[in-house]
Amino acid sequence: MKRISLLGATGSIGTQTLDVIRNHPNEFKLVSFSAGSNINLTRKIILEFQPEFVSVAGREDCVRLKNEFGDAAAFSYGEEGLIEAAVYKGADLLVNAVLGSVGLLPTLKAIEAGKTVAIANKETLVTAGHLVLEAAEKAKTEILPIDSEHSAIFQCLQGENRNEIERLIITASGGSFRDYTREQLMHVTVKDALNHPNWSMGAKITIDSATMMNKGLEVIEAHWLFGLPYEKIDTVLHRESIVHSLVEFQDFSVKAQLGTPDMRIPIQYALSYPNRMELPDAKRLDLAEIGRLHFEKMDEDRFYCLKLAYEAGRIGGSMPAVLNAANETAVNAFLQEKIPFLQIDQLIEKALARHNVIKHPDLETIRAVDAETRAYVSSLI
Amino acid sequence: MKRISLLGATGSIGTQTLDVIRNHPNEFKLVSFSAGSNINLTRKIILEFQPEFVSVAGREDCVRLKNEFGDAAAFSYGEEGLIEAAVYKGADLLVNAVLGSVGLLPTLKAIEAGKTVAIANKETLVTAGHLVLEAAEKAKTEILPIDSEHSAIFQCLQGENRNEIERLIITASGGSFRDYTREQLMHVTVKDALNHPNWSMGAKITIDSATMMNKGLEVIEAHWLFGLPYEKIDTVLHRESIVHSLVEFQDFSVKAQLGTPDMRIPIQYALSYPNRMELPDAKRLDLAEIGRLHFEKMDEDRFYCLKLAYEAGRIGGSMPAVLNAANETAVNAFLQEKIPFLQIDQLIEKALARHNVIKHPDLETIRAVDAETRAYVSSLI
Repeated sequence: MKRISLLGATGSIGTQTLDVIRNHPNEFKLVSFSAGSNINLTRKIILEFQPEFVSVAGREDCVRLKNEFGDAAAFSYGEEGLIEAAVYKGADLLVNAVLGSVGLLPTLKAIEAGKTVAIANKETLVTAGHLVLEAAEKAKTEILPIDSEHSAIFQCLQGENRNEIERLIITASGGSFRDYTREQLMHVTVKDALNHPNWSMGAKITIDSATMMNKGLEVIEAHWLFGLPYEKIDTVLHRESIVHSLVEFQDFSVKAQLGTPDMRIPIQYALSYPNRMELPDAKRLDLAEIGRLHFEKMDEDRFYCLKLAYEAGRIGGSMPAVLNAANETAVNAFLQEKIPFLQIDQLIEKALARHNVIKHPDLETIRAVDAETRAYVSSLI
Repeated sequence: MKRISLLGATGSIGTQTLDVIRNHPNEFKLVSFSAGSNINLTRKIILEFQPEFVSVAGREDCVRLKNEFGDAAAFSYGEEGLIEAAVYKGADLLVNAVLGSVGLLPTLKAIEAGKTVAIANKETLVTAGHLVLEAAEKAKTEILPIDSEHSAIFQCLQGENRNEIERLIITASGGSFRDYTREQLMHVTVKDALNHPNWSMGAKITIDSATMMNKGLEVIEAHWLFGLPYEKIDTVLHRESIVHSLVEFQDFSVKAQLGTPDMRIPIQYALSYPNRMELPDAKRLDLAEIGRLHFEKMDEDRFYCLKLAYEAGRIGGSMPAVLNAANETAVNAFLQEKIPFLQIDQLIEKALARHNVIKHPDLETIRAVDAETRAYVSSLI
């Protein structure tokens, strides 16, 4: 029985994680979780999974739940509550599925507490990969990927020697606008952007997928997760989202992980690792039915955010934190219809150009750079 | 340094194995080998690799080589020589790349002598998989596949639990005639058949690829190599020969091994296993350049030999030996232009229908069934 702590239980990855736990009641037990402000769903999760500890975003919601549930569970709120949920003593494994840079500190604290951490929160590795990896090495805990691409690479690397990797090849569906020219992109709306062809995801990540920043963030994550330099991390456009990523070895043998686009497969793999379990209602991959898989070269001029991400990653230090904060602020402004789609990469580029990189930043520095970048980008909008 | 014994050194797999050994002089040493009647090439191999033991097919060739090379190596010939080469005491690993059922006894003897055996010889596993697996279990030695399809599966299974496999999916290029109807197949010539679209191979295996018997034999091999029932072994038509095979796990995650069609990749993997090594002049796989990978359902009526192989495999016992002997005899007759292409499967079907299966046949029984089947099929030609 693995005892699980889940941050971000009411989000897209969170609810699918609950689905996996629900399907395997003898293997997994939800012992603590955090949620934001969706109190109705939080209530349902408490009733169904009967966790020992629950944290929500706001103090008022916390008080309300305490009154409703009494001693059935312990309750907390805010950033402190998030950390308490992450390091909850009864949990073996933390699933970090919160959105945004708020996921960083709980991850570091959980690692220090010796938990295995399954990460769906991109910002944690993008902004502070060096701190996460150092902490994991010190605590001798494992970091397990949940993103479909990193899970694919992680699965392909089982039984292999990491020093025999030639190259990682991360696949990209291309998002909502993969067939648009930059001119056509000038006029796209929020509604257009949220219409992703393959995956059903949250709004922020769907926009990141359309700008290809999502892939850029994944490249930086892969750099940290698999300890490879950027010249050994490639991307390829693969519109069907069937091949979730590939690894090329030094003998030019290539391994790939494939599957229908169902996030429960990588989520369950992180939970069941190093074993696999049945996923009762998943759709089996039928290659003959699909018929064709397409692969295209990635165009870095067309998908300019990807180029910016490689640049920020190569510079390293505090630069990826600037990339991430500028991107979050710009995407938010686009979702609020304050800026056009193509201004997203322009804002990020300006923020990167302005920043003087700080080598090996600590947590406070990363937070300061994050706040300063957000303020700067907001001032441009 | 791995010390290697190579059976069938002058054939297609044999010369590519020598290429791998040549590329890694610090890792591999050819200590013994067998050849058939290509004495010029045998001579070159002796001069280049300076092995300790050499066996050829005929007594006269053996005497000639002895006179030429004196005490530089020990020489032998015939079936006894083949076995001596296989169990040569200085070798750690046997690469069995001989053609036909002559490969069986040396394999069993090498396993009994505690050697790791890399198998390219299909007949060994097809006709006597139960004996090979029993012997390997008893001697606690490993059987490593060299066929690109089985190597792909073997690579995908590294770091995985075999009891979590849902299904093996063996890819088939479809051979020279994949787009022909059965009516068109009535008139194909030997020359047409030998023109394989993706792989450069020997004549027998190229015809087996055109009839799809090659895939049928591989299904039976996979049954033994990976210990799975036939209902868990599927095939799919994949004309590019880029995805060499796939494994589906119980969570419906699928792993695949890919690469350019270069047999040196799986050969080298068997030699370097569990490590990988560089393959200096191999062509890197460029998926964007290839652009599309196609997959189609396998048509068992169109590729009738595949259906016959599944049937023989499911019945088991001596039936796969009949399948193999009938196929070898019929393909030989086709190559000699004695029968038309479509008579190959008819002859095999007759031989299978006539045979009363013998459960768990020993080596003598397999040899007797083999000889009897060859005589019967020859009598029909």
